[in-house]
This record gives sequence, C-alpha cells and structure tokens, in this order.
Amino acid sequence: MEGFSFSTDVTVRFAETDAQGIAHHASFVVWLEVARVAYLDRFAGGYQAIRDQGLEALTTEVHVRYHGVAYFDEHLRVWARCVGVRGARFRYEYRIIRGEELIADGLTSHAVVRRDSYRPTRMPGWLNAAISAAESASSSTAS
Amino acid sequence: MEGFSFSTDVTVRFAETDAQGIAHHASFVVWLEVARVAYLDRFAGGYQAIRDQGLEALTTEVHVRYHGVAYFDEHLRVWARCVGVRGARFRYEYRIIRGEELIADGLTSHAVVRRDSYRPTRMPGWLNAAISAAESASSSTAS
Amino acid sequence: MEGFSFSTDVTVRFAETDAQGIAHHASFVVWLEVARVAYLDRFAGGYQAIRDQGLEALTTEVHVRYHGVAYFDEHLRVWARCVGVRGARFRYEYRIIRGEELIADGLTSHAVVRRDSYRPTRMPGWLNAAISAAESASSSTAS
Amino acid sequence: MEGFSFSTDVTVRFAETDAQGIAHHASFVVWLEVARVAYLDRFAGGYQAIRDQGLEALTTEVHVRYHGVAYFDEHLRVWARCVGVRGARFRYEYRIIRGEELIADGLTSHAVVRRDSYRPTRMPGWLNAAISAAESASSSTAS
Repeated sequence: MEGFSFSTDVTVRFAETDAQGIAHHASFVVWLEVARVAYLDRFAGGYQAIRDQGLEALTTEVHVRYHGVAYFDEHLRVWARCVGVRGARFRYEYRIIRGEELIADGLTSHAVVRRDSYRPTRMPGWLNAAISAAESASSSTAS
Repeated sequence: MEGFSFSTDVTVRFAETDAQGIAHHASFVVWLEVARVAYLDRFAGGYQAIRDQGLEALTTEVHVRYHGVAYFDEHLRVWARCVGVRGARFRYEYRIIRGEELIADGLTSHAVVRRDSYRPTRMPGWLNAAISAAESASSSTAS
Repeated sequence: MEGFSFSTDVTVRFAETDAQGIAHHASFVVWLEVARVAYLDRFAGGYQAIRDQGLEALTTEVHVRYHGVAYFDEHLRVWARCVGVRGARFRYEYRIIRGEELIADGLTSHAVVRRDSYRPTRMPGWLNAAISAAESASSSTAS
Repeated sequence: MEGFSFSTDVTVRFAETDAQGIAHHASFVVWLEVARVAYLDRFAGGYQAIRDQGLEALTTEVHVRYHGVAYFDEHLRVWARCVGVRGARFRYEYRIIRGEELIADGLTSHAVVRRDSYRPTRMPGWLNAAISAAESASSSTAS
C-alpha cells in the first residue's frame, strides 16, 4: 500500500465476532495493537525491549473509521506506519484491507512513560532511530 | 455533567486490565457500547427493540482520547449523549470520569442498516423521536 | 440458591456475544471472575486488599458446563461460594441462572502466590477467616 | 506431541494480558477455539462449511488446567485432537506448550445444533468421516 512499508495479517477469530454476525468494532482496536507489536518486533527489537528499560507506551488516542464489515475467519491485512515522533509522543496510522477492499483506517497516539510513575519521558534515541530508519525506507519505497 | 443528561456506571474488571497494570484501551470502547445500550434502554425501549424490527446499528467510527489511566476495580461513570441524527446516521459523544477527573472522552458514529442486507436505512421515526425527546430534556437541563 | 449465600448480577454485553447470536462461552469465564471479585469485596475487603500485600491469586483451573444459551442484554445471576481452602489453594463453585433456569455451573481453582516470584504462599489468616465466616453463614442459611 | 497430530501457534497479545502481568486465564479459552477453527480448516473445509449448512457447534463444556503462566509476546503451541464423536456430540482435548514446557491442558465438549432452533442434530457424515480420518492418522503417528 502506498506510503506503508509494513503490514501484518490477522484472521477474524470467532470470539471476535458479535451477534451482528460480524467482527465486533472493538476487535479492530486490538488488531491495531497486534500490528504495532509486530512492527516493533520487525524494526526495533520488540515492545518487550522497551518494557525491559522500565518504559511503557501508553495509548492516548484511538480513532478508527469502519468502511466495511469483516466476517468470521476472514483474512485481513493491517498496514501500519509510525509517524510524528516528537519528544515522548508518537503516532501510528493504519489501513485494514481484505484483498483490495479498504475495511477500516485509523490512527493511534501514544506517549512513552516510565513504568514506575506513568510520567512521560522522551522516546529513547535507539527507538527513535529505528523508527526513522523504518519509515524513511518506507517513504522511498512509496515514491 | 453539563450538556449530558445520561450516564451509566462501570467497574473495571480484572479481565479488562493489561500488563501495564491499567485498564486496556480497548476496554473503553466496550464501555462506550455499554453506555449506548443503557441509553437506549432508558429512552427507547432498548437496542433489542431496534433489532426486533430487523435493523442493526453498525458502528462506523470510534474516536477515544485518553486523559488518564484507570485501574482494576475502579468505579467509572460514562456520560453519553446522542447527537446529529440525519437519515440513517447518528452519533454519540461521551465523557468517562472517575470522581471529578476526566479519564477519557470520545465519540462514535453509527448507521442504521437492515440486518438481512447491511444496507443503510433511515432511522425509524419512533427512535428518532425518542432520542430527540431525551436530548431536548438534556439541553434544557444543561442551560 | 441452596448452599450459596452470595450472588452478583451481570447483563450480557453486546461485545460478549458472538456470531452464533449468543453470549460467547469465554464470556462466562469472565463473569465467574466478576463474581469472585464481588465476593471478596463483600466479605474480605476486596481483591485489591490481597494485592496490596504483594499477593496475587492465580487461576489454576476453570471448569464450566453450559446448560443453556444466554442472549444479548439478558440479566444473569452468578452464585458463587468459596470452598476447600487448604494452604495456598482454594476453590470457587458457581451457578449461573436466568430467572429460575440454570444456564451454567462451574468451578475455578486458585493458588495464592507472591507477586514478585509467582511462588505459592499460604493464604493469609485474615482472608481465610473472612471466607470461613462468609461460608459458615452460608451453610447455616442453607440448612 | 504423542497422541496429537495437529497444532496451531498463537502469540500472546498485549490485550490478552492482565494486571498480574500474565496472559489472562480466559484468553486460553479463546486460544482453544482458535485451535478448533484451524483444525477444521485443515481437515474438514473449515467451520464456515458447517455454518453454511445451517448448523452451529455449541460449546457445552470447557475445562482448562493451568500448569504455568504465559507472558506477553510469547509463542505458544496449541495441540488439539477431536475425540468421542457420538451423535450430535463431540469433544476436543488440548495441550498448550511453550517450547517443551506444558503450560495448560484442557478439554471442550460440543453439540451440533441447527442454527434456526438450537436443537441438537447428528453430526453430518462428511464431518464425522473427516474427523475420523484425521484422528486415525494421528493414532498411527503416535504408535
């Protein structure tokens, strides 16, 4: 997908469906997190590497727009990119597709905090560098 | 809360927490739904009344901003109001508070669809009237 | 219910249903936990009181038998009793009913552990006493 | 694993952890379902094939014993086998391992029902045959 260099795949679990017969809208929020974790695994040693330094990334905003419904056992692709790193804060943008069809798009905002105090702290340099490298590769891919 | 006439209470379940030691951000999305359901119970005969007519309300957008963290077993109040009914579409706005502290605010957008086809259809008149009555009462309360 | 002196009520959330149109079977497991937490709130100062002493109660076994299905927005009553405290270990038994109808019964087993090591440790005397008091009241009620 | 010919892998999602810092015990129940769905995909055309005939498989019993804790982002293997098909009823048995370590074992019982009435109905012959073929292959593997 143009402007994105990373994606991960999810299959709609039965437990993620609801009585409307479709994937529950909160399931998408979990899939965005699955994509962030997979992104950090790929580019930055994993979210656990961040936790191992006594840090957590809090989610400060979630925004999802649903363009279609998804059904049990369907295979979805979640595209994710990390944008707008500034101090303690960063943002991800997402596209969720089934084949060629856009099912949802979204963004999440985050703040790096110390685990012991939940106080914001600047993103570690190594993480910022890893994200920059990942996303600059993405930009050149997309151009 | 000014501008809101309806609220419902939730207590953070252990299953809703995560390894950050706080309520997982996707749990809030479920609480917004709990509030919508309670709102419809109060003002419009319940969501099941809508389903009984072969209709569903799809969620087409979720936007939550987190201003604080919530912990296991805390009591939260979810304020909700229905705004902007137009054709098949309507929107809810929310404030989630713990005591006097704003923990999160949000909005969700919805479309009334026929259950058999998932095609949008105008909101039934009785539902529109029930929401208008509820919210005009709210406005006068708030003024 | 005979032999039980404690119950708590849950309403089936939409997010807890699945594409079978009923409450997902894993939702029941969460309701058992909701009942345990409410039980400890009532009789023993809350689960948080246990956590505040550096302890956690791990779940070591879950067994649920489903006798009926539950639907969205239904009101269920979860009866719970704590039985078989022995050293670090204890067990709960449950009945979930809708009106007079038994929807599910179950049991869960638990071990008290230190939070820093996850090593089992004897249940604190005050907690054991609180549970004994609660359940002996129950036995006399039931007889 | 001896006696099992099928397994599927899951990675512990952050949303599946709880404030004990480990995978919540209800998450395991969902993983058993993921394994059943993957099993049916492999051997019997998928659970959707069953649903397409107007049938559902209700879960009538869940029993999980937890032998260890699982942490965020860990890779687990869920072994599953279908045993004891009789009329409308069948059962699965499971082992969940991390590397060589047994984390949990369990069983689930199920009943085939018609979707319109939730009345039990004999398992379709093709499904019974597919399961028998899968499991007899397993037995010979294990011997």
